[in-house]
Amino acid sequence: MKINEFYKMIQQKPVILDGATGSNLQKAGMKPGVCPEEWILENEDKLIALQKAFVEAGTNILYAPTFSGNRIKLEEYGLSERAEEINKRLVALSKKAAGNKALVAGDMTMTGIALEPVGPMKLETLIDIYKEQARYLVEAGVDLFVVETMMSLAETRAAVIAIKEVCDLPVIASLTFQEDGRTLYGTDPVTAVVVLQSIGADVIGVNCSTGPKEMIPVIRKMKEYAEVPLLAKPNAGLPVLQDGVTVYPMLPEEFASWGPEFIEAGAGLIGGCCGTTPEHIRMLSQKVAGLTTKAPHNEHPVMLASERKSQEIALDGKFLVIGERINPTGKKKLQEELRAGKMNLVEEMAEQQEEMGAHILDINMGTNGIDEKEMMLKAISKVTMVSSLPLCIDTSYVEVMEAALRVYPGRALINSISLEKEKIEKLLPLAKKYGAMFILLPLSDKGLPKSLEEKKAIINEILKRAKALGISKNQIIVDGLVATVGANKNAAIETLETIRYCKEDLNLCTTMGLSNISFGLPERPYVNSAFAAMAIASGLTMAIANPSNQLLMGISFASDLLRNKEGSDIAYIEQIQRMAPLKEAAMAKAAQSAGNNGIKKTEQTDNKSTAKEADKKKNPV
Amino acid sequence: MKINEFYKMIQQKPVILDGATGSNLQKAGMKPGVCPEEWILENEDKLIALQKAFVEAGTNILYAPTFSGNRIKLEEYGLSERAEEINKRLVALSKKAAGNKALVAGDMTMTGIALEPVGPMKLETLIDIYKEQARYLVEAGVDLFVVETMMSLAETRAAVIAIKEVCDLPVIASLTFQEDGRTLYGTDPVTAVVVLQSIGADVIGVNCSTGPKEMIPVIRKMKEYAEVPLLAKPNAGLPVLQDGVTVYPMLPEEFASWGPEFIEAGAGLIGGCCGTTPEHIRMLSQKVAGLTTKAPHNEHPVMLASERKSQEIALDGKFLVIGERINPTGKKKLQEELRAGKMNLVEEMAEQQEEMGAHILDINMGTNGIDEKEMMLKAISKVTMVSSLPLCIDTSYVEVMEAALRVYPGRALINSISLEKEKIEKLLPLAKKYGAMFILLPLSDKGLPKSLEEKKAIINEILKRAKALGISKNQIIVDGLVATVGANKNAAIETLETIRYCKEDLNLCTTMGLSNISFGLPERPYVNSAFAAMAIASGLTMAIANPSNQLLMGISFASDLLRNKEGSDIAYIEQIQRMAPLKEAAMAKAAQSAGNNGIKKTEQTDNKSTAKEADKKKNPV
Ligand SMILES: [Zn+2]
Ligand SMILES: [Zn+2]
Ligand SMILES: [Zn+2]
Repeated sequence: MKINEFYKMIQQKPVILDGATGSNLQKAGMKPGVCPEEWILENEDKLIALQKAFVEAGTNILYAPTFSGNRIKLEEYGLSERAEEINKRLVALSKKAAGNKALVAGDMTMTGIALEPVGPMKLETLIDIYKEQARYLVEAGVDLFVVETMMSLAETRAAVIAIKEVCDLPVIASLTFQEDGRTLYGTDPVTAVVVLQSIGADVIGVNCSTGPKEMIPVIRKMKEYAEVPLLAKPNAGLPVLQDGVTVYPMLPEEFASWGPEFIEAGAGLIGGCCGTTPEHIRMLSQKVAGLTTKAPHNEHPVMLASERKSQEIALDGKFLVIGERINPTGKKKLQEELRAGKMNLVEEMAEQQEEMGAHILDINMGTNGIDEKEMMLKAISKVTMVSSLPLCIDTSYVEVMEAALRVYPGRALINSISLEKEKIEKLLPLAKKYGAMFILLPLSDKGLPKSLEEKKAIINEILKRAKALGISKNQIIVDGLVATVGANKNAAIETLETIRYCKEDLNLCTTMGLSNISFGLPERPYVNSAFAAMAIASGLTMAIANPSNQLLMGISFASDLLRNKEGSDIAYIEQIQRMAPLKEAAMAKAAQSAGNNGIKKTEQTDNKSTAKEADKKKNPV
Repeated sequence: MKINEFYKMIQQKPVILDGATGSNLQKAGMKPGVCPEEWILENEDKLIALQKAFVEAGTNILYAPTFSGNRIKLEEYGLSERAEEINKRLVALSKKAAGNKALVAGDMTMTGIALEPVGPMKLETLIDIYKEQARYLVEAGVDLFVVETMMSLAETRAAVIAIKEVCDLPVIASLTFQEDGRTLYGTDPVTAVVVLQSIGADVIGVNCSTGPKEMIPVIRKMKEYAEVPLLAKPNAGLPVLQDGVTVYPMLPEEFASWGPEFIEAGAGLIGGCCGTTPEHIRMLSQKVAGLTTKAPHNEHPVMLASERKSQEIALDGKFLVIGERINPTGKKKLQEELRAGKMNLVEEMAEQQEEMGAHILDINMGTNGIDEKEMMLKAISKVTMVSSLPLCIDTSYVEVMEAALRVYPGRALINSISLEKEKIEKLLPLAKKYGAMFILLPLSDKGLPKSLEEKKAIINEILKRAKALGISKNQIIVDGLVATVGANKNAAIETLETIRYCKEDLNLCTTMGLSNISFGLPERPYVNSAFAAMAIASGLTMAIANPSNQLLMGISFASDLLRNKEGSDIAYIEQIQRMAPLKEAAMAKAAQSAGNNGIKKTEQTDNKSTAKEADKKKNPV
């Protein structure tokens, strides 16, 4: 099935999915602990009867019972060598049950072995496992794919990448959220939507998780950010234990009564998960018949995301800081650590920058004597464990960028794409494939633009090329390209005009590296901070900076406050609180250097040396 | 003579003045040490012959020999009781010599007793003395006045005020500059022009001083700032001592050869001072015959001035700081000093603010328990002795403002004139009379404007009223009226728009008090500084602030640098150097408070208490 046909179908009216497979087959005699795929192949009529009942109840898309048909899961029963046969026969059963009354989706889920860095599974291994199953399912003739009951966003992403690399069938990605509104791995619904739609999922959904009531707010939240249709497949209520058996207690009528609210909340595809019978589906189908589904909004907030957190990037939003510190340029200690293969300092910098109020973390591993690709992947792995901020991947090498974008389980920011032939030709397609946002650097093979006009022309040329690849304008953040005011007296004025032009004339977000402006001047923080305030007044969206720079951060947050950006008053006060320990530390440091080796009130104070210092002071020179 | 007739006359072609009186009369027999006025009256024919010779040589304006005819000078010869008779008879002689071929100017000069605070003479006493002589001269029928050979700007100003309060004849104010380019009292030519034309002098000039060569650059400099015609009356060269007698050696031909250069430099009225004979004037007159004088420039730099220094106020000029500290509001120690009649703290604040880079000093004496007018005059007197910065007179009382403007020997800034009936009706005429610039405060009797539109309407209404009084737009600086962002979230945005509106739409300079914006917020300097940078980017001309606030000053000077204002790079570096001692002091203070009362490396360290502290530290709790 072509994706546009599929979209046409799901745009017209609510699409009805099927109900539970497992719980219904257990009622039909399947014992707990058996391999469901194997049992079905031994009891084909039971499956066909159940699925026919679903189709008769109104199901438009049947899920083929290939849920655990991946090599790892099958191997638990010693069946991995039969993977192809099993997947193909299972699809054939569903197709028989569907007749020409329903589509059949190839169903896939987690392998049970967690991805790195949580578990031992390597990303490329997992992609290969999913690719294998996907190929069997395509060959068996599924109309589309559903990756469901996913508890890990990273694994969902791997499955979507795998399927997209095997075929061009529509892919539904459906996650399971706990009662706290997050997946087991900590992903919230918005982050899931941001990451999955950026990687190309055609429908995003929620299944299993909870009963309908608890699932509605998840769908509602997702809808605000979704560019794609949404799917809801709740269980028949929250499970209760009856006589030692887990039971889903919600009866068909009550279950179906939630249908219209799901449509209102924004779901376009609805069905049931654990505990739902053909009767649940029949009543649900009747309840939503004639309702109109909601189209995606035209204007979605634009977001970056890590695996666990998303960050809005808005033209009129609060000023954002890309923490610049994870970059070995000019940092001897960090260079040494990286050459020794160590990541302690990188982790520390990530944590500190998040604490100090950074919104995004730049990762740059550009130094000699290391394998930059290997270290970039290692840094991403380590940083994502200690910080939930989205990453900005900063490298001069296309292959390092590609590896990083593929492995990063969020929506990354590419730093950067210029008009240089090598960059634009290779990086734009990567931005497209991985749905990453990117920093547009207005440079060309001729070097730095000689004038503001040339700079604007380069920006427009890159925009044109991006558009030709189907990259949305809102994926792009323009770098204002800051020169040094000591070398070009109009450096600040030209950058401010670039920012104004991008915001007002092109509606594009902007970023810049602040500190270049003041190169060679004394007391550079004054210049950098004044520049920040002016740039924010001109509409700057974000800057790459050191979030431990109190002056810069204080001025930046104050600038937002003065511009009356939403929530900026609270953000300012929070930032001041965040910086309080830094201020104290600076005072203590001043005490130590300005005073006569003045004694600090810190826990590190060594009583012995204190006493010695005190003795010395008795006889001041 | 009406001023417009006079202007018509001097616009058409160079106006020729006379030459020396004293040196020529000495040649005619007047002995050194005698009272010249008395000698002339005893030798009327000698004067008439000399002045007739001048008229025949081409003189258009004869100076009546009333130079020292003021009560103080005459009293040196016991002649003060004959002042009226002497002045009137002297004018009659000149009128006789002039026939109807030349105008006669009533000539006045210094009394020889210096004005307060340099000498014992009170301003109102001096004005009365000048008024008395001016009345006699008017009654004697002079066509205009010349106040000449003035070495004190303040006394010149007093004479101009006196004449203007007695009649509406044209007034020429002519100073004497030393070879270093300043008057004996330290006034430079630009400051002289700024102050004298603001107070209403109709022609400004230079006489005596030096020979022609040295006077040309003074005229040239004055011309850049002058809205009125300029006069040059040099000596016949620099004096030399011959046989114990002072001789002015320049011969008529050489003297006259400078004439065209004077016209080119911008002088419209030329003549000779010490040592110049009718022959000098005849040759000069011939030399410049047929030349065209230069009209005043259309666009003059707008300046504030103290008696010794002027400060340009330019729409695109460097950002200026009005030092706000001399204001007892919220300053207990200063209040106590003022109540005790002491000015030590005021003087200290003036010096410190100038050292820290303030461009203008605000003087506010508003506190209870003192005579505000008396203290304002005292403060002006003391501050002008220790600082050469121009003053901003800040008071709620019209009578305090009037007294201050009258006594201040520079061009002051009035802080402020609102649309409140009492303020606009009484203060606008004072701004006109004393030529002061003023801060337009967009308030009305209805209080603070409720909207940006109302604010703009108030600004335009005040502009209209000022124009009706003949006050030039460039005398006005608009206060952006800063509200508190905590109370009005759009406070900053509205002030920035007011600044933009004034600069771009009205071409008016702007000022504001920065700190109000951040009332109630933590770490207010961040907010104030960010606001300063944004306001400077929007075109703010100046702000009232504490120049010891390093952050604010650093950010403000950096903002100018970023805006690429002329000379702003050097100004930034100078400001950083100026602040270096403050930075060190802050470090030392931090050392003292952050460390465990850490011992400072300062001379104030008390060895005893240091030892005691050190003992305590031996046993840390
Ligand atoms: Zn379920
Ligand atoms: Zn939306
Ligand atoms: Zn002279």
